[in-house]
Amino acid sequence: MNILSIITRKKNGNNLSYDELKYAFNGYLNGEIPDYQMSSLLMAITINGMSKSETLSLTDIFIRSGDAYDLSKVMEYSVDKHSTGGVGDTTTLIIGPMCAALGLHMAKMSGRSLGLTGGTIDKAESIPGFNVNLSEDEFYSQVEKLGFALTAQTKNLVPLDKKIYELRDVTGTVESIPLIASSIMSKKIASGAENILIDVKYGSGALIKTREDAEVLSNLLIDIGDAYKRNVKTIISDMNTPLSCAVGNSIEVIEAINVLHGKKCKLYDACVDIVANLLSMAKDIPYNEAIIHAEQSIETGNALKKFYEFVSRQGGKLGNLEVAPVEVKVRTKHDGKVSEIDALKVAELAAKIGTSKMKIDDVIDYRVGLILNVKVGDQVKYGDVIMTLYLKDKSIKFDNNDFSFIKID
Amino acid sequence: MNILSIITRKKNGNNLSYDELKYAFNGYLNGEIPDYQMSSLLMAITINGMSKSETLSLTDIFIRSGDAYDLSKVMEYSVDKHSTGGVGDTTTLIIGPMCAALGLHMAKMSGRSLGLTGGTIDKAESIPGFNVNLSEDEFYSQVEKLGFALTAQTKNLVPLDKKIYELRDVTGTVESIPLIASSIMSKKIASGAENILIDVKYGSGALIKTREDAEVLSNLLIDIGDAYKRNVKTIISDMNTPLSCAVGNSIEVIEAINVLHGKKCKLYDACVDIVANLLSMAKDIPYNEAIIHAEQSIETGNALKKFYEFVSRQGGKLGNLEVAPVEVKVRTKHDGKVSEIDALKVAELAAKIGTSKMKIDDVIDYRVGLILNVKVGDQVKYGDVIMTLYLKDKSIKFDNNDFSFIKID
Repeated sequence: MNILSIITRKKNGNNLSYDELKYAFNGYLNGEIPDYQMSSLLMAITINGMSKSETLSLTDIFIRSGDAYDLSKVMEYSVDKHSTGGVGDTTTLIIGPMCAALGLHMAKMSGRSLGLTGGTIDKAESIPGFNVNLSEDEFYSQVEKLGFALTAQTKNLVPLDKKIYELRDVTGTVESIPLIASSIMSKKIASGAENILIDVKYGSGALIKTREDAEVLSNLLIDIGDAYKRNVKTIISDMNTPLSCAVGNSIEVIEAINVLHGKKCKLYDACVDIVANLLSMAKDIPYNEAIIHAEQSIETGNALKKFYEFVSRQGGKLGNLEVAPVEVKVRTKHDGKVSEIDALKVAELAAKIGTSKMKIDDVIDYRVGLILNVKVGDQVKYGDVIMTLYLKDKSIKFDNNDFSFIKID
Repeated sequence: MNILSIITRKKNGNNLSYDELKYAFNGYLNGEIPDYQMSSLLMAITINGMSKSETLSLTDIFIRSGDAYDLSKVMEYSVDKHSTGGVGDTTTLIIGPMCAALGLHMAKMSGRSLGLTGGTIDKAESIPGFNVNLSEDEFYSQVEKLGFALTAQTKNLVPLDKKIYELRDVTGTVESIPLIASSIMSKKIASGAENILIDVKYGSGALIKTREDAEVLSNLLIDIGDAYKRNVKTIISDMNTPLSCAVGNSIEVIEAINVLHGKKCKLYDACVDIVANLLSMAKDIPYNEAIIHAEQSIETGNALKKFYEFVSRQGGKLGNLEVAPVEVKVRTKHDGKVSEIDALKVAELAAKIGTSKMKIDDVIDYRVGLILNVKVGDQVKYGDVIMTLYLKDKSIKFDNNDFSFIKID
């Protein structure tokens, strides 16, 4: 077996065997195959695709590259969820406590912000003192006791995916459905939950551009789950408007608390839907019944209580949470109805004010962020505040284009 | 402009502009674009192809990466030829002197042996004292005075092609017709000849597998020539049987001298054909008439005289030419007719006995080689010598499989 013949076979549109994929990808992980050969193979895969069987093989090779857990053996009702990327997606900080309040177990490993994608780890770390680097023991013991724990992805969870993802990011090979499926599912399978919900986002700003592709990906995710006897369900949704009115880090933590207090909004609806799905899957009860339980977890205050306990157990001091000092209110010069709020442009503005890293060595200011004061369908008149920015100082210059994504007709 | 969007556009099957190709390829040459991004782009080009306009752009970018000559301004009847790779292809050492004898000017830059491909520079260097590293002045002044000079490709002749070719070689992106066309033509255009003949080989052992692909490549080569107002003609031929009965380095020099003495064989016919084509192109005379002149250049001894002068001017001492001391005669155990001599297998045997480099740091023994004592169609009987090997010592072990490529039915 040699790497050139493997690359050439994929270039010619042939299916690669498990052993060929293993030779190439494990060889890359251990440094025997150089990056220029792997990037060439990744491009051939991106253009010519992979069969379901190749995708299953690759997922398995990813999983076996590091530690893998099977939580079904140590705890009941283990659940996990993943979103392929959204703007103002604060769901993890809300659904974790909701699930815990309902007797589910969520051992959540999350990532950091990069580019326009916010990261749950950065949001949690905006709470002073919050420890996002739990040991394996601390992590799983908190899940067992509290029902929810959050930690940064450990180095040995699918190390191959991390290395491949970094290469895909710089070689134009991110947009490949089989590679996306292997990347998502290897991490979900290796983290060990029995019941997995995946929110597949599509749209111009998303990794997946069309609803058709989202459906293909969705079916592939379910097929991979089947192969590992995991219960996988998907939600397909567009990411045209932000999920939450709050975008930032500490600002999203505050919005999560608002929702756990019972604030009704798009984010509340999304969280109830996700939790109801997870509960329905884990406890095998009808979705309509599960919705009632999910809402009750908030109404009774049980989810909020779990949230405070979760923050406190991981060392966070919510009393010290800070929001950036300079408040800028953006007012409209038009009378009319809000017709569109483009999520991608919101993310670009948020990145501009410093909520996220655009380059690997950027430093995030957890205190900055923005609040959308209007939503699609609202009537506004001249002078109304449509958005509020929280900035560290007055150094950033804006022009009207920065705010034009809130369309008023 | 950024490299990721360029890679992505080619991945999606779009045509790249001159500026995009320049940004990517010049960026690679000057080290701004890393090899893993270039290999990803090369794979996208290999799978999705390039339009004629993209191929012309890339060829131009290649040419402008180094020095380029236009010999039409300094000498009459400049000719050049290129073969996409053959076994026992000693033509350059024969047609150079023939062309010189006919008043043409051939400024020939050649490569070295690698893998199964012999290199004219190694063949010439098997002549003790022969200098293959002429300065630019020495090279062109010899061409003007003698009509023929041979030198190793200078570092500054299309340096981009050299760097790209090395990467293609290890990333499964060699078999791309537009990349092959850009590579060949950039070097031919930059070396400056007005009349260029290209021998496009196809077959299982060649870069180009089918006659159809050879025709596509051939048309592309002519189109590129047109764009630079060069007179380009192609010969399409299969490389199923070796061009010459001699394969090696010093052994091929001896065979070249035999042909220049008038030995009639396949190699003689090939050289007469090439020279007749070049003469017909350069002096605009009918091919049938040009054939007569080509044969006369040998019959009169003029070509041989030019050969001796060429060797002597470049410092070679033909009297010191050596052939390896151990002669092994391979005899057939069958009676019958020679039905096939597979060129690829001949090349593999030649490489095994040390005529060529299999790895970059192998050392070639110029004295070793082989002579095929029979050709396809010959009648042989038990005990006849069908091949003679010239080896440096008796250390190489052979089995019957090594010689089975000469099929006798």
